[in-house]
Amino acid sequence: MAAAVNESDFIARLRAIASDPGARGLADDAAVLAAPGDLVLTHDMLVEGVHYLAADPPEDVAWKLVAVNLSDLAAKGARPRGVLLGHSLLGDGDWDARFADGLGRALEAMAAPLLGGDTVAYRGGPRVLSLTALGDAPPGGAPSRSGARAGDDIWVSGAIGDGGAGLTIAKRLAGDPAGLAIARGTDGPAALLDRYRRPTPRIALGRALAPHVGAMMDVSDGLLIDCKRMCAASGAAADLDLDRVPISAALLAHAGEDRSARLAAATAGDDYELLFAAPAASAHAIEAAAGGAGVPVTPIGRMREGEGVHLSDAAGAVPLPARLGYEHGVA
Amino acid sequence: MAAAVNESDFIARLRAIASDPGARGLADDAAVLAAPGDLVLTHDMLVEGVHYLAADPPEDVAWKLVAVNLSDLAAKGARPRGVLLGHSLLGDGDWDARFADGLGRALEAMAAPLLGGDTVAYRGGPRVLSLTALGDAPPGGAPSRSGARAGDDIWVSGAIGDGGAGLTIAKRLAGDPAGLAIARGTDGPAALLDRYRRPTPRIALGRALAPHVGAMMDVSDGLLIDCKRMCAASGAAADLDLDRVPISAALLAHAGEDRSARLAAATAGDDYELLFAAPAASAHAIEAAAGGAGVPVTPIGRMREGEGVHLSDAAGAVPLPARLGYEHGVA
Repeated sequence: MAAAVNESDFIARLRAIASDPGARGLADDAAVLAAPGDLVLTHDMLVEGVHYLAADPPEDVAWKLVAVNLSDLAAKGARPRGVLLGHSLLGDGDWDARFADGLGRALEAMAAPLLGGDTVAYRGGPRVLSLTALGDAPPGGAPSRSGARAGDDIWVSGAIGDGGAGLTIAKRLAGDPAGLAIARGTDGPAALLDRYRRPTPRIALGRALAPHVGAMMDVSDGLLIDCKRMCAASGAAADLDLDRVPISAALLAHAGEDRSARLAAATAGDDYELLFAAPAASAHAIEAAAGGAGVPVTPIGRMREGEGVHLSDAAGAVPLPARLGYEHGVA
Repeated sequence: MAAAVNESDFIARLRAIASDPGARGLADDAAVLAAPGDLVLTHDMLVEGVHYLAADPPEDVAWKLVAVNLSDLAAKGARPRGVLLGHSLLGDGDWDARFADGLGRALEAMAAPLLGGDTVAYRGGPRVLSLTALGDAPPGGAPSRSGARAGDDIWVSGAIGDGGAGLTIAKRLAGDPAGLAIARGTDGPAALLDRYRRPTPRIALGRALAPHVGAMMDVSDGLLIDCKRMCAASGAAADLDLDRVPISAALLAHAGEDRSARLAAATAGDDYELLFAAPAASAHAIEAAAGGAGVPVTPIGRMREGEGVHLSDAAGAVPLPARLGYEHGVA
């Protein structure tokens, strides 16, 4: 357990994390990053009560803040080069100490140095956290959301729906502190909770896939809404086979696999898997990239002329649910 | 007057501002920036009630958010390349519309394209705004705070204390809405208020000075505390002549020029001038750089062996005030 910190202690902890020379010890006006070519830039915020639960462990909030930003880099095939932190100090030194501890571990695990940032202190509002992440674009350029073409196969990495199921479990636990004892684990509900709290950005996979895809993005708000965005950006339609959407063994055991369970998975957020479209001729290269990165990928449909997302399963056409996922903010 | 906006209108306004191709229309997971060499990175936050007054016009808050970040780039001699915005939507559509309007104008005036960012919506807390700014480092590298050496002259750009006096005026006006009619102007109290609300980052000056200085930083928290930080980073002491600290005609008329008025100016924040140290042999080059940028620079003291800031004026040694400026956060 990290000891509670005051503001200057918190900054001292950040300085200890920021060992990269470009960070200049967090003691200069700015950081410096040597950039050999195109840089990929993203900035995502987490707000208490909106993007995470007040009861979520601070170490997990730090992990998630890093992971959601690096997931955007992964979707562009970028190699992380560093991050800038925007942190709100609300006077809870225990929370801040645990957050700093978790931040250091997350950045180390994901090989992203802390280069700079800012801290602000205020009272009486939700905690607002932000991260700016920078990465080197892949050699052939960062894939966009708009490059999917009619005839392309649509793929997704990993499994879909675990994060959303984990959020539901976390909300239930937030009302039942004793239940927090199951907060860590690799199977059953604990595995789902872990996928919600500690998503894994698909960094190596994204880099390996980038040369072979026409379009790529991460699945943060829900498979269906994110696929709809890829369709809109690309000016094409997607036919998805709901039966082929990959569901983990933990989620199958937890929620079953009927149509409504699969629709719930496909409209839940917090997956941080990669959704991408690629010509059929790229299938072998894509399988090889996935094998190299150790992350399964699954073809779940095909792009065609038209617009929007269209669903079917073994029983035929599936009407789109009214809600396809989360709607919010700038990408 | 900009019409009130909802969240999607606000994002549409940001998209209209984000015309740089690297922004990808704010419709992708991330932005892309071509970087020819070293990049300088900074991230500064503004919190309502902490860094600006709730009564400050939203256009001015947007200006200030851009200016304080670009001031950090200026201090490193960097040329702005773009910014990422972190914006909190608190349900006041009029405020957000005016902010977006002011952001577009500020970014245009300071030649910094909007490349990306994130918006979050919440209620019941202060507005938290942030910006990440990126710039190209100057050819010889970005000057640090730590390169000042014994014998260097200490210089400051522009005039010191206007921003702090403007803040005091703004606080008084916040309790007297009728007084807001003087909010724009170029002389008297209006000029001081304008310097507080619309600081000018010294971008061209910073770039011109960078090759000639040993150390450089911006004066954001107060001349004395910022100079103390430069001393600490450089492992040396500063002797400052309080009589030489440049005071504007508007501030002289407003506050006089006795020792206490000069100390108030030297310990107020919000100046966003450049403080730098350079060998005496660089004086001609520094004057030429200042002439080219159209911003006056004034030598105010000298570095020597030792530590800390030491003040004197025509009457002799001046005891340091207990408070040298604002203390907060990561650089």
